[in-house]
Amino acid sequence: MNRIEVTEKIITAKVSKGISWASVARQVGLSKEWVTAACLGQMTLNEKQAAIVGEIFELNAEEQKWLQVVPYKGSLPTTVPTDPLIYRWYEIVNVYGSTIKELIHEEFGDGIMSAIDFSMDIRREADPKGDRVNVVLSGKFLPYKSY
Amino acid sequence: MNRIEVTEKIITAKVSKGISWASVARQVGLSKEWVTAACLGQMTLNEKQAAIVGEIFELNAEEQKWLQVVPYKGSLPTTVPTDPLIYRWYEIVNVYGSTIKELIHEEFGDGIMSAIDFSMDIRREADPKGDRVNVVLSGKFLPYKSY
Amino acid sequence: MNRIEVTEKIITAKVSKGISWASVARQVGLSKEWVTAACLGQMTLNEKQAAIVGEIFELNAEEQKWLQVVPYKGSLPTTVPTDPLIYRWYEIVNVYGSTIKELIHEEFGDGIMSAIDFSMDIRREADPKGDRVNVVLSGKFLPYKSY
Amino acid sequence: MNRIEVTEKIITAKVSKGISWASVARQVGLSKEWVTAACLGQMTLNEKQAAIVGEIFELNAEEQKWLQVVPYKGSLPTTVPTDPLIYRWYEIVNVYGSTIKELIHEEFGDGIMSAIDFSMDIRREADPKGDRVNVVLSGKFLPYKSY
Amino acid sequence: MNRIEVTEKIITAKVSKGISWASVARQVGLSKEWVTAACLGQMTLNEKQAAIVGEIFELNAEEQKWLQVVPYKGSLPTTVPTDPLIYRWYEIVNVYGSTIKELIHEEFGDGIMSAIDFSMDIRREADPKGDRVNVVLSGKFLPYKSY
Amino acid sequence: MNRIEVTEKIITAKVSKGISWASVARQVGLSKEWVTAACLGQMTLNEKQAAIVGEIFELNAEEQKWLQVVPYKGSLPTTVPTDPLIYRWYEIVNVYGSTIKELIHEEFGDGIMSAIDFSMDIRREADPKGDRVNVVLSGKFLPYKSY
Amino acid sequence: MNRIEVTEKIITAKVSKGISWASVARQVGLSKEWVTAACLGQMTLNEKQAAIVGEIFELNAEEQKWLQVVPYKGSLPTTVPTDPLIYRWYEIVNVYGSTIKELIHEEFGDGIMSAIDFSMDIRREADPKGDRVNVVLSGKFLPYKSY
Amino acid sequence: MNRIEVTEKIITAKVSKGISWASVARQVGLSKEWVTAACLGQMTLNEKQAAIVGEIFELNAEEQKWLQVVPYKGSLPTTVPTDPLIYRWYEIVNVYGSTIKELIHEEFGDGIMSAIDFSMDIRREADPKGDRVNVVLSGKFLPYKSY
Amino acid sequence: MNRIEVTEKIITAKVSKGISWASVARQVGLSKEWVTAACLGQMTLNEKQAAIVGEIFELNAEEQKWLQVVPYKGSLPTTVPTDPLIYRWYEIVNVYGSTIKELIHEEFGDGIMSAIDFSMDIRREADPKGDRVNVVLSGKFLPYKSY
Amino acid sequence: MNRIEVTEKIITAKVSKGISWASVARQVGLSKEWVTAACLGQMTLNEKQAAIVGEIFELNAEEQKWLQVVPYKGSLPTTVPTDPLIYRWYEIVNVYGSTIKELIHEEFGDGIMSAIDFSMDIRREADPKGDRVNVVLSGKFLPYKSY
Repeated sequence: MNRIEVTEKIITAKVSKGISWASVARQVGLSKEWVTAACLGQMTLNEKQAAIVGEIFELNAEEQKWLQVVPYKGSLPTTVPTDPLIYRWYEIVNVYGSTIKELIHEEFGDGIMSAIDFSMDIRREADPKGDRVNVVLSGKFLPYKSY
Repeated sequence: MNRIEVTEKIITAKVSKGISWASVARQVGLSKEWVTAACLGQMTLNEKQAAIVGEIFELNAEEQKWLQVVPYKGSLPTTVPTDPLIYRWYEIVNVYGSTIKELIHEEFGDGIMSAIDFSMDIRREADPKGDRVNVVLSGKFLPYKSY
Repeated sequence: MNRIEVTEKIITAKVSKGISWASVARQVGLSKEWVTAACLGQMTLNEKQAAIVGEIFELNAEEQKWLQVVPYKGSLPTTVPTDPLIYRWYEIVNVYGSTIKELIHEEFGDGIMSAIDFSMDIRREADPKGDRVNVVLSGKFLPYKSY
Repeated sequence: MNRIEVTEKIITAKVSKGISWASVARQVGLSKEWVTAACLGQMTLNEKQAAIVGEIFELNAEEQKWLQVVPYKGSLPTTVPTDPLIYRWYEIVNVYGSTIKELIHEEFGDGIMSAIDFSMDIRREADPKGDRVNVVLSGKFLPYKSY
Repeated sequence: MNRIEVTEKIITAKVSKGISWASVARQVGLSKEWVTAACLGQMTLNEKQAAIVGEIFELNAEEQKWLQVVPYKGSLPTTVPTDPLIYRWYEIVNVYGSTIKELIHEEFGDGIMSAIDFSMDIRREADPKGDRVNVVLSGKFLPYKSY
Repeated sequence: MNRIEVTEKIITAKVSKGISWASVARQVGLSKEWVTAACLGQMTLNEKQAAIVGEIFELNAEEQKWLQVVPYKGSLPTTVPTDPLIYRWYEIVNVYGSTIKELIHEEFGDGIMSAIDFSMDIRREADPKGDRVNVVLSGKFLPYKSY
Repeated sequence: MNRIEVTEKIITAKVSKGISWASVARQVGLSKEWVTAACLGQMTLNEKQAAIVGEIFELNAEEQKWLQVVPYKGSLPTTVPTDPLIYRWYEIVNVYGSTIKELIHEEFGDGIMSAIDFSMDIRREADPKGDRVNVVLSGKFLPYKSY
Repeated sequence: MNRIEVTEKIITAKVSKGISWASVARQVGLSKEWVTAACLGQMTLNEKQAAIVGEIFELNAEEQKWLQVVPYKGSLPTTVPTDPLIYRWYEIVNVYGSTIKELIHEEFGDGIMSAIDFSMDIRREADPKGDRVNVVLSGKFLPYKSY
Repeated sequence: MNRIEVTEKIITAKVSKGISWASVARQVGLSKEWVTAACLGQMTLNEKQAAIVGEIFELNAEEQKWLQVVPYKGSLPTTVPTDPLIYRWYEIVNVYGSTIKELIHEEFGDGIMSAIDFSMDIRREADPKGDRVNVVLSGKFLPYKSY
Repeated sequence: MNRIEVTEKIITAKVSKGISWASVARQVGLSKEWVTAACLGQMTLNEKQAAIVGEIFELNAEEQKWLQVVPYKGSLPTTVPTDPLIYRWYEIVNVYGSTIKELIHEEFGDGIMSAIDFSMDIRREADPKGDRVNVVLSGKFLPYKSY
């Protein structure tokens, strides 16, 4: 048994039972972004969180233990994602990558925006010309320092 | 002559003159994100915008014309970016890719978040534990429809 | 269980029963292009469509549920397709790619032809020198706008 | 000197003189798709066509000779194109590739749609919800035969 | 079930029964090149051919049906083949590729040698210094035409 | 100076002077396949051959010396060739690769068809349904032996 | 002008003048690891540091400005480094990667060892069986937190 | 059975029993770095070590034999690791690679730091601003010699 | 069944029975290099050799037949091998590749050293500073000839 | 200036002056393998050796200094070499890689054959059936040790 098998079991249960990620997040008591990432094998749950998720998706004790093991991360099957929704994000990084770099350095100096001390919030933004996806990313700025 | 040479000339002028992207954007009268992307060879300026940018970076008439030609887009030299700041964004897409896909589909159904009808806003978020980079992405949702 | 297994079951049933895509499309009441793509795991069916497809290919209730889940898209096993028929399309994009870009930009300005708000129609075109494949692609033009 | 240099000279002249592909095609007397592809280094012109193109873009005798040499074809700088407009076409081949294969085989049997005995027509399709790009591809069906 | 499984079953039967491709071709009544390619999952048999091949390799009715379905072609597990015999052919294309292109264009003009309207004949060529492999390739020339 | 520069000079001279490979081969007194490969930087000429080629393409003494140096071989710019004519050959190796392997082994046992002790002959084959390209490849069979 | 040209000028000056990295670091007053990385185009100097480095390597005012611009980082020409010394480090990551991951997670929980809030110290470790390279890496542990 | 299956069995047992690598290392009597690497299929145990590890993870006699067979090494599923913790190490090699090379050569001359005659020590380094991961690498310097 | 499964069975039997390659080679009566390569699925055995190998590793009649089928060769799972021992050989080809090419051409002219009419002998070379691996490679020189 | 330019200058001088590597090696007083590798930019010369090589190839003082700088090693332009002579060596590593690994481990245990404490000797081996290339590789065995 490994984490990938637990993830597949969660996804299969989600489809057959018609569970929504939003409801899982409400029961766990955290954001839907973090909880979904955890269920998809990208984050590590603590014992209590694993028990809640385990009950929702009918996972046994060993499967719940796997949810508490730090996973090997990375959720894409190919270097350049083929799925159109995910590719658009890769395209944003590709087209705007140098822009993002320039503007963060102009504001903060040399360093990075952390992908660890990081949170994401995805919401619907009503718009008469067609609703929009609104995403807020917040990552701590980590400066390079000389030593 | 091609657009890449114009981009290089802009960057060289920016360094030697100490111009900031924020000041360029103010003069053009648009967001710093779009203006920087345009100066870096990813967006197309109109004649008036090209004239303003041309004056700032001392571009001649032919170089200004190139700013009005639709460029071949993509600002990264490798499929997986090596620069740490840009890589963190690739990592976000890699680690959170399946999460983003699940949550947008849960809210909107099958479709994508547009990277064309799209805007980005990068700001400093003050934080006593260390300032953060706050990024808002807004893209129109485009549904797949049967036909 | 996952969508790939459902797709494989559909293909196996198609071969053993001798079902044609055209007849599936007629029963679903939509174009053969969209219906085939959906059966091959690239589009999302609604409940009623899934029931019709499920009856044709003898899918059980859970398998029909998978047809209603947004799939991870991309139908090619390699970055450059090895199959001669599909490669010819990759070659068209490779040889004519810059031409397509130039002509769409000349007509519409900066932007893209959508692959989401998109339809395709494949027909036989009788020709005394050998019949031809006639394909009509229709995609909404989405302009880049400054912001 | 090589064909790539001639192509670059044509593109540079096009930008500085503000020439449109449509007007070049009219002067050559052929479709804008074929003429643009030829100017971009993907097709071979005859002597008379090369003379017309040469006059438009101010090419000398040797440069005109290069337009009559069969070029090494392929207009994309990377295996997966990064430019958003061209990528959408790659995505169509990726998402619809197996569908196209199934439907052509269902209609014609084993074989391919030629990318050589082939023509393309790109037009604006007026639409109140936003104009569309309409593309017609026509390629001869070439059957595999046993021997 | 899929075509790959049928191919594997054919190869396993061939080894355990000691069948030669030449004898299969004689029974089918076609060239050994085409028949072997078909048995290896690269060509499509008609019903009668499938029945003969099915009898030789003890394939059931459903497996024979798969022989009549157009396969996804491409017989190499890697982009550059590692097997020494097949690599030598890749090397010929690599070393002589530009030569082949020049000489076919010199004789025929712009176009290609078809790999569809194509046949191959592999024979032993006796030679006192060591026998040789003699291969004749015949492919229809398909010209690019302007339109 | 290096061999690649000499090759480029030969190609440039060929275009500007309108020289045919067939005439070069006649003057060298060898097959057009070998002579073209040599001029394109894939084979090594002896002093006398280099002098003849040098005179035809107006190469100086040092450039003629480079023709006598064993080149780094491989004439394709990418692993999978993008040029349609050369790709068709790659496709033949891909689709027929396992067939070629099976049939040569069936006739000769374990070993390879040499790409060194090798010759190629490309000819026009008249055909009322459209002329064909006829290619004869002849390579010595080299057996693997146990030791 | 760009940062890569400044790096090349520094390296050329270093060879022709016989300057050691250790002496550069002493003059800058920081570690040899950080100073060398900065001179090789991977870190950003402040104005005073740039002036010192500029004087050592005879850089003009504009070149010194480039040292103060955040560079596009990544010092390897290929994804897998071919240089034996650098490859050994890639091999350590490859062979010990899963071990490093397990032990850091066992000690700290889910998170990463920062490559930004990071320092490195390379020293000679005398050893009678042959001196050793001793490297101390120190990176802040950054925990993933739920949100 | 193969080594990979034994590694998977060890990891599964570790999760279900809640064993720590530190305790395994104490029982084996060697460093946690080497012992973890060995359990993860990267090092070779002797009979006695295999017996201890076998008892901890409940491996049978044949599985213990596999621990004593030299494994095919390399613990990463992709050339560029996607897991954020391991990627940071790849990034260190990428950003600091040329620096490491320069400084080792400056101190030792031409040669490498061995990845075979090598040891690693990973420790927690308490720090009021947040604890750090401290890693000491020690590899014998191996000089290139002329011959 | 296929050759890979037979290879895996041989390796599994080797580990569980503690068989050495040297003893297998003695029983077969050939070099340990060729016999090991054959057992690892890279060479083709005759009936008598297969019977001996079959008895040693307890292979049944069908498995012995597979040893007599020419295998698809290539023993490495990745293009650049990750295993340190095998990588060192790749590194030798990479670092010394151009040297090997120059020296063989200087001695023999244009051609190759055969990897088919080839033998290898690996021996221990006692050395007071540490024993060495001594490898003798012998390959027939095959000249390119003009034709 | 960099080492690559010095290497190119050496090769150009070698061709125009007709110098042999064997004569360079005799003057340097070392093996032809090491000296050729050094001249091709893979090894580091000392001052005296650089002076001898510099005189032979007419290198100035600065160019001689570059010969004394440790180069970034790796002499192949592509991961899999396209040149037939060098490819045969890659093929030997690919086909015999697992064999080499097994036999060295059987003789020496876990460890590697050094590519640093390494020498190579390439000689002609007269043979009535065609002369052979005889290569002796000698590399120190470096054992992995537990710690």
